[in-house]
Amino acid sequence: MAEANNTQSEEKLKQHLEQVLELLNKQRLEEAVVQQQAMPRHQLVETLLHKQQQAALKHKLDQLHSADIAYILEALPLEQRLLVWNLVKSELDGQILLDVSDAVRETLISDMDRHELLSATEQLDTDEIADLAPVLPEEVMQELLESLNHQNRARLESVLGHEEDTVASLMDFGMVTIREDITLGVVLRYLRRRGELPEHTDKLFVVDKQNLLRGVLPLQRLLVNSPDAPVADIMSRDVVSFQLDADAEDAARAFERYDLLSAPVVDRENRLQGRIGVDAILDHIREKSKEDMLAQAGLLEEEDLFSSVWKSAKNRWFWLAVNLVTAFLSTRVIGLFENTIAHIVALASLMPIVAGIGGNTGTQTSTLIVRSLALDLITPANAGRLIAKELSIGFLNGAVWGTVIGLFAWGLYGDERLALVMASAMMLNLLLAAMVGLAVPLMRHKLHLDPAMGTSVLLTAITDGMGFFIFLGLATVFLL
Amino acid sequence: MAEANNTQSEEKLKQHLEQVLELLNKQRLEEAVVQQQAMPRHQLVETLLHKQQQAALKHKLDQLHSADIAYILEALPLEQRLLVWNLVKSELDGQILLDVSDAVRETLISDMDRHELLSATEQLDTDEIADLAPVLPEEVMQELLESLNHQNRARLESVLGHEEDTVASLMDFGMVTIREDITLGVVLRYLRRRGELPEHTDKLFVVDKQNLLRGVLPLQRLLVNSPDAPVADIMSRDVVSFQLDADAEDAARAFERYDLLSAPVVDRENRLQGRIGVDAILDHIREKSKEDMLAQAGLLEEEDLFSSVWKSAKNRWFWLAVNLVTAFLSTRVIGLFENTIAHIVALASLMPIVAGIGGNTGTQTSTLIVRSLALDLITPANAGRLIAKELSIGFLNGAVWGTVIGLFAWGLYGDERLALVMASAMMLNLLLAAMVGLAVPLMRHKLHLDPAMGTSVLLTAITDGMGFFIFLGLATVFLL
Repeated sequence: MAEANNTQSEEKLKQHLEQVLELLNKQRLEEAVVQQQAMPRHQLVETLLHKQQQAALKHKLDQLHSADIAYILEALPLEQRLLVWNLVKSELDGQILLDVSDAVRETLISDMDRHELLSATEQLDTDEIADLAPVLPEEVMQELLESLNHQNRARLESVLGHEEDTVASLMDFGMVTIREDITLGVVLRYLRRRGELPEHTDKLFVVDKQNLLRGVLPLQRLLVNSPDAPVADIMSRDVVSFQLDADAEDAARAFERYDLLSAPVVDRENRLQGRIGVDAILDHIREKSKEDMLAQAGLLEEEDLFSSVWKSAKNRWFWLAVNLVTAFLSTRVIGLFENTIAHIVALASLMPIVAGIGGNTGTQTSTLIVRSLALDLITPANAGRLIAKELSIGFLNGAVWGTVIGLFAWGLYGDERLALVMASAMMLNLLLAAMVGLAVPLMRHKLHLDPAMGTSVLLTAITDGMGFFIFLGLATVFLL
Repeated sequence: MAEANNTQSEEKLKQHLEQVLELLNKQRLEEAVVQQQAMPRHQLVETLLHKQQQAALKHKLDQLHSADIAYILEALPLEQRLLVWNLVKSELDGQILLDVSDAVRETLISDMDRHELLSATEQLDTDEIADLAPVLPEEVMQELLESLNHQNRARLESVLGHEEDTVASLMDFGMVTIREDITLGVVLRYLRRRGELPEHTDKLFVVDKQNLLRGVLPLQRLLVNSPDAPVADIMSRDVVSFQLDADAEDAARAFERYDLLSAPVVDRENRLQGRIGVDAILDHIREKSKEDMLAQAGLLEEEDLFSSVWKSAKNRWFWLAVNLVTAFLSTRVIGLFENTIAHIVALASLMPIVAGIGGNTGTQTSTLIVRSLALDLITPANAGRLIAKELSIGFLNGAVWGTVIGLFAWGLYGDERLALVMASAMMLNLLLAAMVGLAVPLMRHKLHLDPAMGTSVLLTAITDGMGFFIFLGLATVFLL
């Protein structure tokens, strides 16, 4: 399929969803009527009406693009989702399974038997089967593997043999290869004989007999140059290619940097293995930014909008438990100073400010560091300068906000010693927050851990605990 | 330029950066020597050495792609950045200004005079000039406008007349248009005569005499069909096109959904106005996810890694001030209960837990709602179900974690009444957090405000303040 069929604007898409919901509701009303009346002589009529409704729904769905059906399935509660899913043309099943989110895919697959799954997946390309592999039942996967020819089985095993987030996991095999010793005219005749080109073909790959990548021939050059010219003269030898096990994120940045539409994937000997397209890159970027967002909010994975309460709750518990443990540690810090608080109750009111603003400034620093690390902008040569800068900002922030808060505490409680303790605690905690905001992502990066994940939990735990400790500790020393 | 020149792998790119830094360091060392000795008779030799170093650096830079130079400029401290910037071939200036981040762009532009800016921007396409327009000095912009021909001026004004984040702001004008009544053979001859095609051309746009969009002809179809076939028979009439003022985010989702590489942009009468390419979509998605990340961390905009401490501090103050105000409000809630705390000091230790976990669960809920809103998955028909589900989870979480924390408080202080108050406060605050996590993004969406921005600040302010109020309030009523 060289292009999308029946593609929709965002608005029309919403209308489609509403129409499907309307049809579903009508059907439900009728079912309710049937159940309420439960009169045998009516049954025939009702079944007919029900069938009519279902036919209307099926007609509606038949007109839609697989990606649009995927969108509608996402927005439907479970029982309605399965009802619609069973009405979908079975030749779209595979494509739709690829298009829905992981959580919804699970609900759809659990509704399909072995036979349905096989016929849905058999229509897919090798790289698409690889995408579904983790969620397919073992025996379906086995049968699929057996149904593939030698080349496709080798390809599937190659993709599955590489880790997620490598170039291999994003590649497809829709590549057209040519030799460099023929003319463009021969290439044109070859393409015409071949018929349809793989989706997203913007360039042909030039390889030699050993399948070594020699260059690429953009379709544009093929079109604007004389048919008599040999491929070798017209092709580009300066090719951005990616190794199978290269980091997908690096490939994504190269696609952005050089505005690529597709690029060859090669093995260590530069033999052509596959192709990576900008559509896979786009999906990868969205997926990563979604994962970051979920992780930041303390969610393990994306939830099906209509999954059970129990399932959703479990998705949220891991990080809540982690936060509870860190909160527990801060309370124990406060517990050390209960005697001090009993003497000066104002401390209880003021202490959350010191801890909170510490967490905020630390997060600002760590976010910028995480981003710079992701963009590869931090080198040993400039790291020193960067650290000096962040510490200076921490100091400046401490001086400014410490003064503001000290004045505020003075105004509130009229106690200049309390105000001084508050200001100093603020200053120290903001400096500490800057150090932690620097150290945590830099260390995680050095240890080859993802600098983003977990940084904020660790950071807040430290700034909270230390914030309480510094403030209450200073108060104990100077005010008691 | 149909493809990237001298494109680099991520690793090689880092090596280039290191080499540039090395050359810069050598130069600095020599300058230091020159300054230390300050002997006139040596000066000639040193200047020669210095020149040699500079020539080596220039040679290095001349081999690099504009996007790679942009990357190196980002990673260099200000004075070294400007040194490199002045050595860059001037014909790359415009492209590099487009490639660097906003913050670095500012530093580069402030180092250029009117003449340099004009010659850098004059080589750019109309849509690229539009991207730079906000940061160009008024008089340069004026001169640029005057230098453009009628069509390009109209195009530039059209782009600048639309808001950011509309399709118009992402479009370019690199489109090739044809008529439907000619044959593919004529199209092929036309393209060959025309020579190079605009970057990223994957399809030709078919328009009539009034410039109304009739269809698109993918290059692939042009290649595989007979030259005798008329365009009208081969072109696709089912075109995904976008209105000038459509939301860029909607376009991005359509690109993902239908795996598009480029699409026509039309006005309300369906007249072809421009083209939107997947490269612009990719940039847009990265830009948005970057903005979300920065906003979430409480930063106004991206910082140049090496901007002054003062400038960076100002970037961070707005949200720190907002957080300070909300923290102040929570302390006033605590202040109301200082008498209670003076009687039962344990409350001071325990209260941060109730507030903190409330903020965490509320953020989980609001993140999922914000995401579902962004994907257009929430409709009036399913909103009720969703709200019921989130409240159930809030209730379940409250029961589970309330019990855990109640038991923990009991173990710690051996007071079962305190434990009961703690458990009930936890329960109520988690239920409240779920409600706020639902209400804030849904209301912001209804009011056509960005549901993400500001949600977390508002949410934490409410869960903190109410968390303290519920816990200390219950304690005052039942424990005093």
